[in-house]
Amino acid sequence: MLSHETQIRVRYADTDQMGFVYYGKYAEYLEVGRTDMVRSIGVPYTEVEAKGILMPVSEMYIKFKVPAHYDELLTIQTSVASLPRASFNFDYIVTKENGQVVLEGQVKLAFVDKEKMRPVRVPGFILEAIEAAMKHASET
Amino acid sequence: MLSHETQIRVRYADTDQMGFVYYGKYAEYLEVGRTDMVRSIGVPYTEVEAKGILMPVSEMYIKFKVPAHYDELLTIQTSVASLPRASFNFDYIVTKENGQVVLEGQVKLAFVDKEKMRPVRVPGFILEAIEAAMKHASET
Amino acid sequence: MLSHETQIRVRYADTDQMGFVYYGKYAEYLEVGRTDMVRSIGVPYTEVEAKGILMPVSEMYIKFKVPAHYDELLTIQTSVASLPRASFNFDYIVTKENGQVVLEGQVKLAFVDKEKMRPVRVPGFILEAIEAAMKHASET
Amino acid sequence: MLSHETQIRVRYADTDQMGFVYYGKYAEYLEVGRTDMVRSIGVPYTEVEAKGILMPVSEMYIKFKVPAHYDELLTIQTSVASLPRASFNFDYIVTKENGQVVLEGQVKLAFVDKEKMRPVRVPGFILEAIEAAMKHASET
Repeated sequence: MLSHETQIRVRYADTDQMGFVYYGKYAEYLEVGRTDMVRSIGVPYTEVEAKGILMPVSEMYIKFKVPAHYDELLTIQTSVASLPRASFNFDYIVTKENGQVVLEGQVKLAFVDKEKMRPVRVPGFILEAIEAAMKHASET
Repeated sequence: MLSHETQIRVRYADTDQMGFVYYGKYAEYLEVGRTDMVRSIGVPYTEVEAKGILMPVSEMYIKFKVPAHYDELLTIQTSVASLPRASFNFDYIVTKENGQVVLEGQVKLAFVDKEKMRPVRVPGFILEAIEAAMKHASET
Repeated sequence: MLSHETQIRVRYADTDQMGFVYYGKYAEYLEVGRTDMVRSIGVPYTEVEAKGILMPVSEMYIKFKVPAHYDELLTIQTSVASLPRASFNFDYIVTKENGQVVLEGQVKLAFVDKEKMRPVRVPGFILEAIEAAMKHASET
Repeated sequence: MLSHETQIRVRYADTDQMGFVYYGKYAEYLEVGRTDMVRSIGVPYTEVEAKGILMPVSEMYIKFKVPAHYDELLTIQTSVASLPRASFNFDYIVTKENGQVVLEGQVKLAFVDKEKMRPVRVPGFILEAIEAAMKHASET
């Protein structure tokens, strides 16, 4: 399993009049989490698009536990439990500095050929990078 | 069952560099859908908060089918299948003018006492409005 | 002079923890105002891009007068005082239902050749549509 | 003069279908710039609100120079040239890693008494923190 942590500080823009982070904003936080993860294993998303592959979100599930507030520093823990096939599945836990769990969630991305705008299976260069990272993770 | 339709035109701000509506933006569209629904049954959300009740989102699930694009006119169909108890559950289907289904989803809201910041069961005035609307819907 | 009015209802997503519309959100409202205006004179922005022209914002000024709140219905008044040359200038006044002025602002758009990513002068088909609309406005 | 630098990496959510950062998103970047600055001089904005003062934006001006793109690392340079009186003025320059200037701008904040929802002059504890920081900056 691959796991990666990213920290995000809540912006004023992210809050709503309840004084909580607006629920739709977490989609951005989760994006940052998986972007940082794939960059860390050597597959920056800019390179993926440069190779003609888009990775739109096909499914999202979030269970909100406690609200996050302005200026809090959140840790986005992004995990990949299995090799991608038709889709690339990310599991998330977002926590506060005091350890409170803000949310748990899953996001699935599809692989789409940019020219044909058709779903494709995971491209080889992505699969290889993940296999290598998983091998490395299991050895350390 | 209660059902309500709202139309939303995709803004440029909503798109991302794939040329699709960014997945996190749909949370706003779904918010507009349920806001319009509860307004239509006589319980505008401003009134709910004025009575000391907050309704934060506790759970969200979205299955994305086809991407929506700039300037498309989307129909947000919001349905309530059962009376709220500890949570208020909304079912969604978002479609394009040509009938294509953009997404299907569910959003659950909690009821929170604003003073005590504690979850509460559905307040009477909300339950009654929904019961009345369901009764009216079943008669017509 | 051309003038156009659009109405926008404030979403919960637009508010921040002050209970006001977040200042950055108004950029979206102003976008909707000018989009509706250019659509009304027969030059929908989708068509502009289809003809190879992008219109990025080159300058924005907003003077905020009174805060707008959740669920308020705002009127975006978009005006064009002069024919576009190198840039396309929009003047804005946003008001509440009670007539209070929320903001006054200006936004300038550039014209950019999509292929060459170079600024260009106003394309003929846009200039003609505006001239025709101004002529029509002055006659009525 | 006080000056502070913050770095922000462009999120996918921030882009639009031109492939540029959406113009309204920069308001968030500028917010982060001034939040970091006031935190650095010992006046975190959470503390300001805790003392009953809101600081809504009263004026914003941005001149966009070159577009920013997905995944670019931007430097937000936030400067304060004079002591706040009725308003608190921030000057901005946003640059790319290669030195290109993305935008120049100014944002003015008002001071508002949270209870009375009335504009007030700069509170003493803010003024003193800025004076101390300016003194310190001029000595180093």
